[in-house]
Amino acid sequence: MAGTMLPPPRPLLAAAGALSFCLCSSLLLAVADARVHNYTWDISYQYKSPDCFEKLAVTVNGEAPGPTIRATQGDTIVVNVHNKLETENTAIHWHGIRQIDTPWADGVAGVTQCPILPGETFAYKFVVDRPGTYLYHAHYGMQRVAGLNGMIVVKVPDGIVEPFSYDEEHTVLLGDWWHKSVYEQATGLTETPFVFVTAPQSLLINGRGTFDCSLAPSGTCNASSPDCGLRPLFTAVPGKTYLLRIGSLTSLSSLSFEIEGHSMTVVEADGYYVRPFVVKNLFIYSGETYSVLVKADQDPRRNYWAASHVVGRNASQTPSGKAIVSYAFKGNNPWIPPPTAPPAGPAWNNTVIRVQQSRAIFAHPRFVEPMPAGADRTLLLLNTQNRIDGHIKWTINGVSLIFPATPYLVAMKRGMTTAYDQRPPSDTYDHMSYDISAPAPTNGTVRSPVYRLALGSVVDVVLQNSNMLNNKSETHPWHLHGHDFWVLGYGEGKFNPAADAWRLLNVRDPIMKNTVPLHNDGWTAVRFRADNPGVWLFHCHIEAHVFMGMGVVFEEGIERVGKLPPSIMGCGQSKGLH
Amino acid sequence: MAGTMLPPPRPLLAAAGALSFCLCSSLLLAVADARVHNYTWDISYQYKSPDCFEKLAVTVNGEAPGPTIRATQGDTIVVNVHNKLETENTAIHWHGIRQIDTPWADGVAGVTQCPILPGETFAYKFVVDRPGTYLYHAHYGMQRVAGLNGMIVVKVPDGIVEPFSYDEEHTVLLGDWWHKSVYEQATGLTETPFVFVTAPQSLLINGRGTFDCSLAPSGTCNASSPDCGLRPLFTAVPGKTYLLRIGSLTSLSSLSFEIEGHSMTVVEADGYYVRPFVVKNLFIYSGETYSVLVKADQDPRRNYWAASHVVGRNASQTPSGKAIVSYAFKGNNPWIPPPTAPPAGPAWNNTVIRVQQSRAIFAHPRFVEPMPAGADRTLLLLNTQNRIDGHIKWTINGVSLIFPATPYLVAMKRGMTTAYDQRPPSDTYDHMSYDISAPAPTNGTVRSPVYRLALGSVVDVVLQNSNMLNNKSETHPWHLHGHDFWVLGYGEGKFNPAADAWRLLNVRDPIMKNTVPLHNDGWTAVRFRADNPGVWLFHCHIEAHVFMGMGVVFEEGIERVGKLPPSIMGCGQSKGLH
Repeated sequence: MAGTMLPPPRPLLAAAGALSFCLCSSLLLAVADARVHNYTWDISYQYKSPDCFEKLAVTVNGEAPGPTIRATQGDTIVVNVHNKLETENTAIHWHGIRQIDTPWADGVAGVTQCPILPGETFAYKFVVDRPGTYLYHAHYGMQRVAGLNGMIVVKVPDGIVEPFSYDEEHTVLLGDWWHKSVYEQATGLTETPFVFVTAPQSLLINGRGTFDCSLAPSGTCNASSPDCGLRPLFTAVPGKTYLLRIGSLTSLSSLSFEIEGHSMTVVEADGYYVRPFVVKNLFIYSGETYSVLVKADQDPRRNYWAASHVVGRNASQTPSGKAIVSYAFKGNNPWIPPPTAPPAGPAWNNTVIRVQQSRAIFAHPRFVEPMPAGADRTLLLLNTQNRIDGHIKWTINGVSLIFPATPYLVAMKRGMTTAYDQRPPSDTYDHMSYDISAPAPTNGTVRSPVYRLALGSVVDVVLQNSNMLNNKSETHPWHLHGHDFWVLGYGEGKFNPAADAWRLLNVRDPIMKNTVPLHNDGWTAVRFRADNPGVWLFHCHIEAHVFMGMGVVFEEGIERVGKLPPSIMGCGQSKGLH
Repeated sequence: MAGTMLPPPRPLLAAAGALSFCLCSSLLLAVADARVHNYTWDISYQYKSPDCFEKLAVTVNGEAPGPTIRATQGDTIVVNVHNKLETENTAIHWHGIRQIDTPWADGVAGVTQCPILPGETFAYKFVVDRPGTYLYHAHYGMQRVAGLNGMIVVKVPDGIVEPFSYDEEHTVLLGDWWHKSVYEQATGLTETPFVFVTAPQSLLINGRGTFDCSLAPSGTCNASSPDCGLRPLFTAVPGKTYLLRIGSLTSLSSLSFEIEGHSMTVVEADGYYVRPFVVKNLFIYSGETYSVLVKADQDPRRNYWAASHVVGRNASQTPSGKAIVSYAFKGNNPWIPPPTAPPAGPAWNNTVIRVQQSRAIFAHPRFVEPMPAGADRTLLLLNTQNRIDGHIKWTINGVSLIFPATPYLVAMKRGMTTAYDQRPPSDTYDHMSYDISAPAPTNGTVRSPVYRLALGSVVDVVLQNSNMLNNKSETHPWHLHGHDFWVLGYGEGKFNPAADAWRLLNVRDPIMKNTVPLHNDGWTAVRFRADNPGVWLFHCHIEAHVFMGMGVVFEEGIERVGKLPPSIMGCGQSKGLH
């Protein structure tokens, strides 16, 4: 399996070279104008009613979601995070930001830092080196479920022209929401018998959802709370075009998003321009962002539904996420619900149309990122479930990842060889004989190993789905920290490295992303250059799944990482370190 | 106020000298036979139904309360605490153990150690140098409310005769219990408007209580759960005498405990033998322990109620704690509830009988601990509420205590002068003119100071109660870490150091304790010798109150503290320390 996985490269588009120049000059521009944005965030529990049911949420300065960070390419962001959670730690990940030269600011407790203790303040400082739509969220245990999340919008510098135009932009943050606490969810996942998280009680659009209060115990739900219910998403002026920056930070759900009566033209994915394509429903997986253009071209005398629905999982008890797209028309009340029934959304179990959309995403012809022709190393990663010591765990090539008490970054930089598992995990699995539709194997282990990648090497990863212990397969959005990857392709069934799989891979104009779905009963292949010194998590973005061990850790160029800030230390074996 | 507060000493009982010898020889004996008891505890959230309502509890090896630690005087206890709370830290205090030479094992996050992070193991190692009944519990934020607590029973060495005899002994751990989480309670205390914790939903005896499930949302309460409801407390053989080691770790409630139809003879308090006295109701405050003798001298053909009731606070919605004292009699089912109605308990607002009982506790004549004749320093501590920055706080002489990010013990030992507040708190308040029945003053501040005591000096502390912001006064059990104190006396109204207060103080045979009630509308005076190098918390043992700042910190002999274990470090300014 070592060496090149792909056949010799076909010539890259001529446009790619031009792009390369274009990016450089934009970066220069950005640096010249670079600003520093300072934020001070108090992280605390507050009572919130995002879907009318009142419960505690982890908030940023009292709000959930947190504020949108807005900056321009090349700017520096400084967020002083003050943990006021009383007894619970935290860490915040800046999702999609590669953290070049600042691997300690990636915000993954156990990988890049010790968690931030109650009463302490931690300063995240990093450069937003690429324009696009990004996210942030808690990255500690399953804490993201409790509400700490938000968006990051990085604009192109003045003078740089994007390959599309619009009149106004808006952010659309999608989520799912439970009435039980994170602790209750996590306890179910660790107890025997195992209890998986339920379907979410609601879907949120920009932090608001609707729940039928008659289903809740009295006194816990207030249908007229100002925090919840329908709200205008934006006001459309007839004839104008809107850019919606859409991000999903669901904890569990794959979603379909649509705006009733309006088509959406997808123009950006995870910070990269795509060859524009039109959808009615945008399928979006946790950790992904898309920018879409919407033209206000419908009857302006009424309002329209914006709606999100769970797909890929039967969540019929979960009401759809709903908001109002209101038209600016004389006499039209932007808060009046549309006269129509909300969209029903696509069938939750129609995998085909979801895979089709994944396959329809290519780099914009003028913005193809040059891809290395072949890989130096290929990882074939089997995603499956194992029952280990009586607990259900996710394993990748037989390893269920548990974060060590000492963060990998500190342990590896300081040569603490007892702080994590020195036995390397396997680059492959028994792909010749493994039956991906059979019950899971029983030889999994819970460990803390790391894939050590040669700095600058090119790595292909093929994620291989398989049946869970319940003999079903489901979609997993995989997110890579510290890098973007080229999406080589998606396939059904089992990836066969020796045979026809090559034909399916797109080496001509693959989109780059940081999060990609691994569809049920199939595989997904990506390529990245291990050129960012640090230690980086690669994991399923479903909170319960990574909690159950569904991730791997990559290290590259640890010797090139700069001096670690003492603020990331203090846990495990780093208690006594300067 | 400095110097001696008390008049010249009256001669101590002749017995005291004899006791002194007796204690030494018992200690020698103990050391000769000393054993090491090793425990490994996993601390995790588990679903529990102590009062039939199912909710998450912080457990020790899956149980709440945790196991009773049993040892003999002079033994060493080692508890390896493995934090499996996922995102929440912990620390465990060994309540009543003075931690001589091991101040770092006192288990108070923020004072004696950094909290134990999820995934980490912390070893508490200490000697139980005195026989008696002690407690343990979480000491981090308000985490004790979530259930981590238990008892420590230290026996006298073989050959040592106690001043009473009995046939069998049993432990009785009293608690109160809420259906809301710690997070919900803490959020209410910090939000605006302020929401104080409700009356508890139930009272627990040895971790079991009863709640009327018809009051709970469907599916949350199971009246036939094996975890809850009535259970035999012990089986009495007619004519035999039982020692009940009773401890209270309520989070809020002062309690009355009784056994229907049986009187109780109090023989020990907080590890010290008392001049025996008989009660029908034992008033016990959070953090206190008492041993009582109960003789099985009633009609053996039936069972009897053991019951706890809230006193000092109107908690009419809280059902009493109930258990069964069953008689070993042919045909008698130990699980059959007694034929009588459960005791109603004393009137909750009868302060007089509670104060009377406090005043009835003296040292056993043969075990009077010699007390220094006078004090080197006197602290007159006004307990009151302040509204600070819109929040209701408890203040002591105007200071609402907040723990610094760096534990005091580390900060002071290492000379980190910026880690805590260098401005000393005041030894007194304006006792001449302050009106303890008037609304609280408005000049309180939230700070992290410390009282620095001369090593070996004798300190008198007079706790002065006053009205809260609601113009009422209530009972506060004050607990001192690292020391026992002589209880000099209790008084009504305002303590006047210059006048008749002296007459009320008992210098002849004061009992020693580690927890003492400060009754409503009154004062309590104690004396201790600051002879234990370390940093020690002294605080109200009501979880919500210490969370609101109701405590002070004492330091003595920090230069005599041995080398700090690195395991207590890692937070605040101790991140970079060996």
